[in-house]
Order: sequence, then C-alpha cells, then structure tokens
Amino acid sequence: MSLTCSEVRRGAYFDSVVLMQLQRALAELPGVEDAGVVMATAANLDLLAASDLLTDEARGAGADDLLIAVRAEDELQATAALEQVDALLKQRRSRASRSFQPRSLPSAIKTLPQADWVLISVPGRYAAGVAREALEHGKHTFLYSDNVDMKDEIELKDLAHEKGLLLMGPDCGTAIINGVGLGFANRTRRGSIGLVAASGTGLQAISSYIHNQGAGISQAIGTGGRDLSPEVGGMTSMQAMDLLGRDPQTKAIVLVSKPPAAKVATRVLAAARAVDKPVVVYFMGQPVTARRIGNVLFAINLLDAAELAVGVVGNGEPEVEQGSSFADLASKCVRGLFSGGTLAYEVMLGLQNQISPMFSNVPLREEQRLANPLRSQGHAILDLGADEFTQGRLHPMMDNTLRLRRLRQEAADPDVGLIVLDVVLGEGAHADPASELAPVVTEVIGDHDVDVAIFLVGTEDDPQDLARQKKQLEKAGARLFDSTVDLVAAIAKSAAPNSGTGKMPAVSLETFRQPLAAINVGLESFYDSLTSQEVEAVHVSWRPPAGGNEKMMALLAKLKSS
Amino acid sequence: MSLTCSEVRRGAYFDSVVLMQLQRALAELPGVEDAGVVMATAANLDLLAASDLLTDEARGAGADDLLIAVRAEDELQATAALEQVDALLKQRRSRASRSFQPRSLPSAIKTLPQADWVLISVPGRYAAGVAREALEHGKHTFLYSDNVDMKDEIELKDLAHEKGLLLMGPDCGTAIINGVGLGFANRTRRGSIGLVAASGTGLQAISSYIHNQGAGISQAIGTGGRDLSPEVGGMTSMQAMDLLGRDPQTKAIVLVSKPPAAKVATRVLAAARAVDKPVVVYFMGQPVTARRIGNVLFAINLLDAAELAVGVVGNGEPEVEQGSSFADLASKCVRGLFSGGTLAYEVMLGLQNQISPMFSNVPLREEQRLANPLRSQGHAILDLGADEFTQGRLHPMMDNTLRLRRLRQEAADPDVGLIVLDVVLGEGAHADPASELAPVVTEVIGDHDVDVAIFLVGTEDDPQDLARQKKQLEKAGARLFDSTVDLVAAIAKSAAPNSGTGKMPAVSLETFRQPLAAINVGLESFYDSLTSQEVEAVHVSWRPPAGGNEKMMALLAKLKSS
Repeated sequence: MSLTCSEVRRGAYFDSVVLMQLQRALAELPGVEDAGVVMATAANLDLLAASDLLTDEARGAGADDLLIAVRAEDELQATAALEQVDALLKQRRSRASRSFQPRSLPSAIKTLPQADWVLISVPGRYAAGVAREALEHGKHTFLYSDNVDMKDEIELKDLAHEKGLLLMGPDCGTAIINGVGLGFANRTRRGSIGLVAASGTGLQAISSYIHNQGAGISQAIGTGGRDLSPEVGGMTSMQAMDLLGRDPQTKAIVLVSKPPAAKVATRVLAAARAVDKPVVVYFMGQPVTARRIGNVLFAINLLDAAELAVGVVGNGEPEVEQGSSFADLASKCVRGLFSGGTLAYEVMLGLQNQISPMFSNVPLREEQRLANPLRSQGHAILDLGADEFTQGRLHPMMDNTLRLRRLRQEAADPDVGLIVLDVVLGEGAHADPASELAPVVTEVIGDHDVDVAIFLVGTEDDPQDLARQKKQLEKAGARLFDSTVDLVAAIAKSAAPNSGTGKMPAVSLETFRQPLAAINVGLESFYDSLTSQEVEAVHVSWRPPAGGNEKMMALLAKLKSS
Repeated sequence: MSLTCSEVRRGAYFDSVVLMQLQRALAELPGVEDAGVVMATAANLDLLAASDLLTDEARGAGADDLLIAVRAEDELQATAALEQVDALLKQRRSRASRSFQPRSLPSAIKTLPQADWVLISVPGRYAAGVAREALEHGKHTFLYSDNVDMKDEIELKDLAHEKGLLLMGPDCGTAIINGVGLGFANRTRRGSIGLVAASGTGLQAISSYIHNQGAGISQAIGTGGRDLSPEVGGMTSMQAMDLLGRDPQTKAIVLVSKPPAAKVATRVLAAARAVDKPVVVYFMGQPVTARRIGNVLFAINLLDAAELAVGVVGNGEPEVEQGSSFADLASKCVRGLFSGGTLAYEVMLGLQNQISPMFSNVPLREEQRLANPLRSQGHAILDLGADEFTQGRLHPMMDNTLRLRRLRQEAADPDVGLIVLDVVLGEGAHADPASELAPVVTEVIGDHDVDVAIFLVGTEDDPQDLARQKKQLEKAGARLFDSTVDLVAAIAKSAAPNSGTGKMPAVSLETFRQPLAAINVGLESFYDSLTSQEVEAVHVSWRPPAGGNEKMMALLAKLKSS
C-alpha cells in the first residue's frame, strides 16, 4: 500500500519552472509513484487532491506557502524523497540562483540603472502591481503573466501611453527588441521588417519564416491577446505601429492578430494607412477581399504575411501606388444604392474594416441591420433588389424609379459625401439605364456637396452599348469603376487617417538605439535566456507582497496610492 | 380635388413587366397624378392603399383579377386614362404578344419538341407546379421565380437529380447555356471557363470580367441562392460541377457562392477535388487561407476569381501540382495536439471547409466546442497551451509530459488516422523537444495504424539545433512540415473525394451539344430576349391554374398526383 507524505514551507516562494523541475526530479527518485510541488493556492490544492497527493497537513497551507507532496511505496521512501528537496533545489542550473539578487524592483533599478526594460512573469494576481511599479519608474514593460484583469490592462496601458512607454501584454509570450528575444523567441537575424502581433507562437512562426527566407527583423513587439478588443482599443498596437513607422531601421511593418472588433479594425487600418511605409496586415480568420489598398497589403496566412513583407523589403523602397479617391469620408458618409445583391455584399465585405459604423438592409452581421430600410444612417449599403423594395414593382435592373428617388433623398442628406451605384447591363436589364440616371447624377452633384461613384458591369457586346453608357455617366459627373476592388480601394483611401495616439507623448526611438539591458521579475529561466543572449540583466528575488495575504496587499496598495 | 377611378378585369393575367409598362404609360397621360396596375393580390391591394389608389370596387377584386387604378385631377381625366388601357396594352413591343402562344406547357412541347429548356418566371406560388411539370416532361429548368418554398425546392431538385436534369433556381437570375443568356445575362464570348454560381449579379460580374479580359465562357449555371444551404445540400452545384467536369469544352470551373454550411462546404470541396481540371472557388466572405490546394484555387473577390480562371486556361492545360498526402482521412480522423494557440487556430481556419465535423477546446465557432477537452471526438484540434491544460503545470512548449500522454491516448483510438503536433523552438522553449517526442512517435507509429505530422517552427540559429531536431523527428517516422499551409494542403488532399451525385443518372453532355431551343413560361421580356439572341422559342400564354383559386389549385394537384 502506498503512502503520501508532505512538507509545507511557510512563506517560501519559487517560480513555476523551478517547482516543475523539482517535481519531476522527485518523481524520478526510487520508489516514488507521484510527486506534487506547488505554491499552496486553492486551485493547486484541488489539483493535488485530484492526483491523490493531498495530506491533512497540506490542507492547512496558504497561497504563500510552498507545498511538497510525495506518494511512494512506503513511508521510508516518501521521507527519503522529501529529504532530497534541498539538494535538488541547489542543483538547479539557473544562473539567477547563483547571481546577486536584489529583493525589490527599485533596488534592481539602482543596481542596473541603464535597464530600460522590465520583464514580468510573476503569478497573474501580482502582475499588475509589479507592472505599475515598472511603468512608474519609466521602464518599458514585457508582461508575460496571464490572468490579469481587463480593467488592470486598460489602466496599465493608459499609464504607459501617458508616459510614452510600451506595455507589451499581459499574456505576451514573445518579443524581439534590439535583436534580443524576450520570453519565447526564435533567434532571427536583424533586418528591416518590424512585427506587431498579439500572439506568442504567431509572432514566432512569422519571425522564423522571415529569417528562413533570408530577411530579418528590426523589432518584434507583442501586444497581448486582448489589445484589439473593443475595451482596450488597440492601444499597444497603435503605439507600436507609430513607433515602427518612425524607426529608420524598419522598412515594412507586419501586423498580425485575431479579427478585431469592427470599430477597432477601422482605427488600426487608418493608423496603418497613415504610416509612410508598407504595412502587411493579417487579421486571422477574417476574409481578405483585396491584396492591397494603397500602402496596406492583406495577407491570408502567416507564411503569406512573411512572404509579402520579405517581398516588399527585397524590392528596395517599395512605391506606394497612387489610386483614385474621393473627398474626405472621415466626416462624411457613404451610401450605396445597389441593384445587385451580390455586388452590395462584396462591397460591404471590402469596406467592413475600412468604414464604421456601416448599416444595410442585407447586413453582414445582425447589428448592422438598418432600423428602417427607407431611411439610411451612418455609412449604409442598400440592396434595392431585396424583397422589401421590389414588392409590387420591377427589379431595379429594369426599373430605375426607386433608385432615382432614393438618389435624390441621399444626396439631400448633409451627412452624405459619396453615393455609390451599380449599373448592370446585359440581356433582360433596362435598355438604356444611363439615359435615366445621368440627368439625376448631374442634378444631385450640382445641388449638393456629394460625389457619385458607379460600378458598371457589362461587356462591349451588351445590347446597351457599354462605351456609350460609360461616356454618358462620366459626362454627367459620375466616377466610373470597373471592379468592386478599385471602388473599395478608393473609398478606403478617402477615409481619413486617424493616428489614434492623440496628444500623448510618442514612444521615443531611443528605445531602439541602446544595447538592451533588462530587469527580470518572475521566471528564472527568462533571466537565463537574457544572459545567454549576452544581455546585461538583473534578476529580482521577488516574493508575493504581504506574504500573499490579499487583504494586507489591498491595504498596502491603498497606503501607497494615498 | 383629385379623384381615383379603377377598373377590375376578372381573370385577366399579364406578367409584371407588362403591368409596370402599362402603369408607367398611364402615369404619363395628361392630368394623371398616379397610377397602379397590379394583379389584385392582398399584398398589392395594401400597396395601392398606401399610394391612395384603392377604391371600393378594387377591394372586391381577387388574386386572379387585373386591377387598374388611376388618380387624376378630375373624373373626366381619370376616365379618359382608363379608356386608353387597351390601346396601351396593344402597343407593347413584345414579340411574344404577336406570336402564336400555346396555352399550356404540354402543348408548347408539342409545338417545339426540340426544346430542352423551360424558363419559368411565373409568380412564386405557382412556380413549383410549373417546374414539376417541366421536369416530368424531361426538360432542364431555369426557375427565375422567387418565393418558392424550401420544401418545394428540395422536392424539385430530387426529381431533377433522379431524371438527370438540371433545375437552376429558384430565384436564379442568370445563366448562359450554349452561348445563350437566360434571364439577366451579359453577352460574352464563348470559351473554356465554366461557371457555377448561386447569384445573379455575381455571375454577371464574373462573366463580364472574363469576357473583358479576353477569355470566354463555356457554360454558366445558376443554382439559386439556397442551393448550398444545409437543407438543399448543394444538389445543383454538385451536378453542375460534375457536368462541367465531364464537358470537353470546359478547361476550368469557377464556383461562387455565399459561405455554405461547413458540412456542405466539405462536400462541395471534395467534389471540386474530384474534378480533373482546375476549380476556382470563391466563397464570399469566408476567409481564404491558401491560394491553392491541389487543383482547387481559392479566390478573394469576384475579379480575382475571374483572373485566376483566365490565368489557368491561358497558360494551357494547367498542371495539377503533386504534394504530400496521408493515408485515407475520409474514414479516419485527424487529431491535433498543439502547443501554440495561434498555430492551432491557423490550422483550424485552413481545415474548416476540408474536414468536418471538427472540434476543439478553442473552437472557431461555438458549435465546434469539445464537450470534454480530455476526450477527443471526430476531427479535433487541441490547444494544449490553453488554461484548462496548463493549470498547475508548465506550458507544453517547456514540458512535454501532457502531450506525450495525449499522443499515446489519441494513437490508441482506432478512429484516428493522423496526429498533428507543432514543435516550437527558440529561447525559452524546451532545450531538446525531439529527444522526448521522437521515441513516443516511433512507439505509436509502430503500435497503431496512424501517421504523425509535425509542424516545426524554428531557425538554424535557435539553441535547439533545428537540423538535428528535424532529423531526429523524421527518423522517428514523423512527417515534417515547415508551414501550416503545406500541412493543411496535405490533410485536405487526403480527405477522399466524395462525388455526392451518388447513383443517380448524371446530366447528359447532350445538354450542351445542341443549339438551344426553349419554352418560356412567365415574363414576355425573357421570350423577347431569347428571340433577339436567335433562339428557337415558344412563349406559353400562361394563366394561374383554377383562376388563381388556391383551394381549387390544391385539389387539382391532389387529383393529378393520385
């Protein structure tokens, strides 16, 4: 019959890598069936219980206590294993355990004042406090810890923003700053591609692809998985894009994330357009509807993102193509009056990250549904061939009456800057749509401050005479497009850039000009990684404040802030 | 004060184009303020009331009655307008009104026995009955009418399938058969690109793009907007792809639709893979994650779909690239055990239309969520770095314990044919993952009928020695991939083709070998369009059966079917 013995060390703190190494070493000792080495939080006690490793003694331990439990064939072997703990802890190979360790962040800063960066990987419930301290000391912060509250993330990012600092994370697994990998990072050559990504392995894969294709990374900035959520609003992403936009080493930027909320996507893409270099955007899982709009290239997978970036930096200073655009659409709205449902749908897909809010009677998502199809609001793309408009009348491809009325109605709305129509020629369609549309186009352009854009579908063999239709509509003052791709690009370019970083101090380029020096708070293995990369670093012998007593911690925080 | 007069013609039927033309002509007469010309259905009476055109006399009219209402300045002018009705109806320019018109479909078939096609554009509530009659007479059917029940659509498509006929629609706006446009269609040159699309204007835009790029259309087949719904299951799309696959004139196929349900998408893509020519797929609004998998090319917009097709047919017989693949995954499952969340996500995005059902602990859509992350089902892609797996243990990038246990568990499942792992090298990661993974890979490949595929992320500068890791894993029997793109392609190719047309008779290629002849039931303007394209056609002088009396219609249908 096997037996479980345990040992509780009050107030002893080790990081989770050290604990896991100890646990594995114990489990390999003779006679030992299973071992558990954890900080005695409630969650960890549950896990031990599930593994049949929880003793009565262990039940009494607290979150600030180190708990070691061993189940062995008999008591002798269990006790023998526990006796090995100190020897095993001493054997750990971390350089951190052999170096001088200040006990607090301020004293670490005194030890290594040239350190611009603080790496934080302490347990989530302590992480925001450490990060705040780092930012208040003017340090850029790499926040690896997860389980940080959204509220704390927003406060930390606001603080960082105010101070012109970068706060990467929380749950930021990977970054490469000045050639040094922080957290998990592949060793890649330095080069001219700047990366901005939420995710750890996404950033690793793309940086490896770039290296393996012979190019290199200027800087790789992690943002944390929630940065592009509506709540956080892309604060770190916007700072990073602005910083890399100003960095002379960076010739192209790659931005990778899961699909952001529409409002955030619009803001981030406006910031990307405002950058004076190519920006490759990969919003994972969101449909790409054009390969390029101005300086922004859209990728369909991580490899593609890497290849696009390597392509643009490899071909020398890439030229930013000029294309059609309209009057300012940042303060004015687009209204689309389509006869073709598929054409309306494709234009909405193309515009969904470029302008917002966007509404429709045939919306991509339910929240975009127009309350009243007879009355537009915001940017609105209408399918006038939908049932609610064709009841009792012919389809707008045959009968322009409704479209002409609506064209006048939209043009009279002072919020409207652009009206978009499709004109579909061919068998079955109206015999001469331009003859009816052209006079009204001329009229509304004359009477109001609007542009009219027309996507013309047809061939030179169509019965309506494509060339004549086009000429009539152009003469009337409409801007003609022969694909939705060009139309969408022109609209996107007219949605004015909004840098989003507002009046806060920008992050200084000095960040990238110095050899990296860093302070590590948390996992010893991150310190090892820094020193193996020949980075000047200090490891803080961090312990939970107030011995992990949460009430005491709250009180301390209150005293500090008052 | 103005005055409304009306006239009811019992049992008179005209199609909606004719009615609209009459309405517009009446509205232009002197003194006339507004006019309404409709079949007196309840919906149309409501519309007239809204326009202040409803008289007491009109309220008594029924769905089979023609109702003409005129509001004029005084009674004299209103009456004078109504007196013009017959003259205006005679003036209509349709050739149909001047040709011999059989009164029923069977008599039309006797008149033009060589007609293989029937075009139906009668009001929706009558359309299914006419379509059934056409199919029962062995005719391919172009069903323009909308408002046809889903149940009727399924019955009609089953019937068509059984008889080896095409049923395009309902709500099919556009087709091009043997160079003849049906419904709304642009005039395009004949060529080698076959189109299959749900939508009217989508098909028009893509066929125009192809023509304008100098290439041409072999056949363009409409399917109706609901064909790829889970209920209909893509019946017409599958038939069309199979038919175009066998058609020697067609060198490439383009398939366009709104995103289908996952199950239908999987089936349709399997059918596309089974075709021995390039197939360009554009599922509007669904993310494209690879530009090409085998013979299937993925487009990001209508113009791109056209360009891809023109590209492949322009470059001669396109070569179908050979790539890696695995043992049969049609009957066996894929299980992914990922350490990188982003990598798992990208693989899921790539596979979502290729294999189904697919499950995950980090699903793309909620219905894919694994009931129990500890127990896989179907195809399953797991992120072992997610919270539920890392509570109390290190991340799988540092600690392989959990992955190795799960690898053995999945391999022992007789449903499993392939296990996919990622191995991420670099700073912070496990110092030698291959040393732990390789023996277990060898073990499970030896003990079970499974393949192991590994996506390896790293650079040759990484501390783990990329080349050595790769060699060890390959020696162990794993198949190595250096991008998710290649991995996804290999899995997709191993998901065996399932033609889906089953044992039903295929649609005969004779359909495409004859000059088109057609019978038109419904809009006279479609007849005009056929004759203007020099097609032999007959227009049926169709009237609602049983004078539009729905109870009588149901009784008639019952008598017929018994």
